[in-house]
Amino acid sequence: MSRRGVVLHPRHPRGVEEALRSLDITLVVPDEGALPTAIGECGILVTFVWDDVFLPGLRWVQSISAGHDQFPHDLFSEQGIVLTSASGVHGPQMAEHAFALLLALSRGVAVATRNAVEQVWQPMMLHELAGATMGVLGLGAVGEEIARRAKAWGMTVVGTKRKPDDYDGVADEVLAPEHTGEVFRRAHAVVSALPGGTATDGIVTREMLESLGGWFVNVGRGNVVNETDIIAALDSGGLLGAGLDVFASEPLPSSSPLWHHRRVVLTPHTAGFSPHYGRRLAAIVSDNLRAFGGEGEWRNRIV
Amino acid sequence: MSRRGVVLHPRHPRGVEEALRSLDITLVVPDEGALPTAIGECGILVTFVWDDVFLPGLRWVQSISAGHDQFPHDLFSEQGIVLTSASGVHGPQMAEHAFALLLALSRGVAVATRNAVEQVWQPMMLHELAGATMGVLGLGAVGEEIARRAKAWGMTVVGTKRKPDDYDGVADEVLAPEHTGEVFRRAHAVVSALPGGTATDGIVTREMLESLGGWFVNVGRGNVVNETDIIAALDSGGLLGAGLDVFASEPLPSSSPLWHHRRVVLTPHTAGFSPHYGRRLAAIVSDNLRAFGGEGEWRNRIV
Repeated sequence: MSRRGVVLHPRHPRGVEEALRSLDITLVVPDEGALPTAIGECGILVTFVWDDVFLPGLRWVQSISAGHDQFPHDLFSEQGIVLTSASGVHGPQMAEHAFALLLALSRGVAVATRNAVEQVWQPMMLHELAGATMGVLGLGAVGEEIARRAKAWGMTVVGTKRKPDDYDGVADEVLAPEHTGEVFRRAHAVVSALPGGTATDGIVTREMLESLGGWFVNVGRGNVVNETDIIAALDSGGLLGAGLDVFASEPLPSSSPLWHHRRVVLTPHTAGFSPHYGRRLAAIVSDNLRAFGGEGEWRNRIV
Repeated sequence: MSRRGVVLHPRHPRGVEEALRSLDITLVVPDEGALPTAIGECGILVTFVWDDVFLPGLRWVQSISAGHDQFPHDLFSEQGIVLTSASGVHGPQMAEHAFALLLALSRGVAVATRNAVEQVWQPMMLHELAGATMGVLGLGAVGEEIARRAKAWGMTVVGTKRKPDDYDGVADEVLAPEHTGEVFRRAHAVVSALPGGTATDGIVTREMLESLGGWFVNVGRGNVVNETDIIAALDSGGLLGAGLDVFASEPLPSSSPLWHHRRVVLTPHTAGFSPHYGRRLAAIVSDNLRAFGGEGEWRNRIV
């Protein structure tokens, strides 16, 4: 039996190609111009980039990202194309990253690092997360990893999820997205793991940020909050600090006041980076190759 | 019955005096010059500072610090003076602080913050703690809080303790201090929560740091390692990063290369800072006041 051909989009994170080559497949990584022909021959595409020219002959798309809003769900459905996501591949590292940003604020590491550049030794009041309440916006695969770590460290967790009734994780309480303001009022720290898209656009308001009296961390998507609202809430005193991995525009423009605010800590959209990313994605692809061949269940099937 | 008089040394962390005032005692906080007289009248001193002029009339010293090497144990023993420590008061915040420093290295937050000062957006390779091995030097009250958090996040924990046979915590393996080098060879991250004193002086060598291939964090005492060895191990590539809250000399001298090393993150000896510190110390003092009065057991009795 000849090995199954699988096309990998040439734009992909480090480690993915190596991990997929460990599978029993013929992996094709063509130049962008040669993608339609290669897809027409194999029928299987692993990608986070979408273009309608990929359609002819396509039978299954494995997304490299946890989000999948970039793919035309209805069109896939009409044409019988399966769509699977990489949900679960990003959870552990994104949860650790969220805590890295949060602790950099609550334990004064970000300010101490700015002080170190100036050789300034200046102790400051610090805080404890144990016993405090963590708000998690978006209790999906990533949000749940954050919630698990918060619970394990003695925090109470209140979160939001599109369908709260379907939730079966560790959070103490789960609310619908329209109660996002309540999460901010009750929590000492709020982490957003929300996906992008119109449903989450501007869902976090300046009023919510000002009601927090704690730290806001965003490892989801930059569109959920207006950056001028973050600055305003920091300056009015209602928001103690902001830890941001995602922005409205990336790379962050040099004109942004976020670069220099002492109560902001930022990373360049790296929360998903992990040396284990490719290995976890390959495990999903391996299972889904069996499902594609008619054996076993699909993992993370969206369409 | 008149209320018991207790002397608090005027040099004490923020929050301690307020918390002790909530107890059913007469709290005296004299000027330093008036301390001997006040101690002679009350017999009870709460302090982390020691001076032999405090001896006349002294019956019990409650240390504000977890360490107690500054007190003359033999002299106390001869004179029948009880010594109790503040062990347990620092655990939660110091464990969170250790992870704040570790995650600032493993998730690139420290480098990103230095980059932010220059408005540089530069993604870098990052790491995961889940699945990795954490070494904890000194599995006392603080070390155990660190071990518990590491285990809860999916790490394996190997640690050291003066008497490994007495250990009954969550670490997977506990070795005697003479096997410190083995901990460095096996772990991906090593956190020192060791106390100061001659027994720990220089216990972490340059060779150990170079064998780590990961991150070294110190929230214990600066004497356990030579700072020039840290710099040498970073520059030779064996040590990925160092997160330091304690130093040989504090404040850190302006001549120290630690201020500007890109793979060092430092905080100004603030790992023990917490808004809950005073409350937890007051609970220990309250129990020990009963023991002093002949009812119940001493907590953290050293002498």
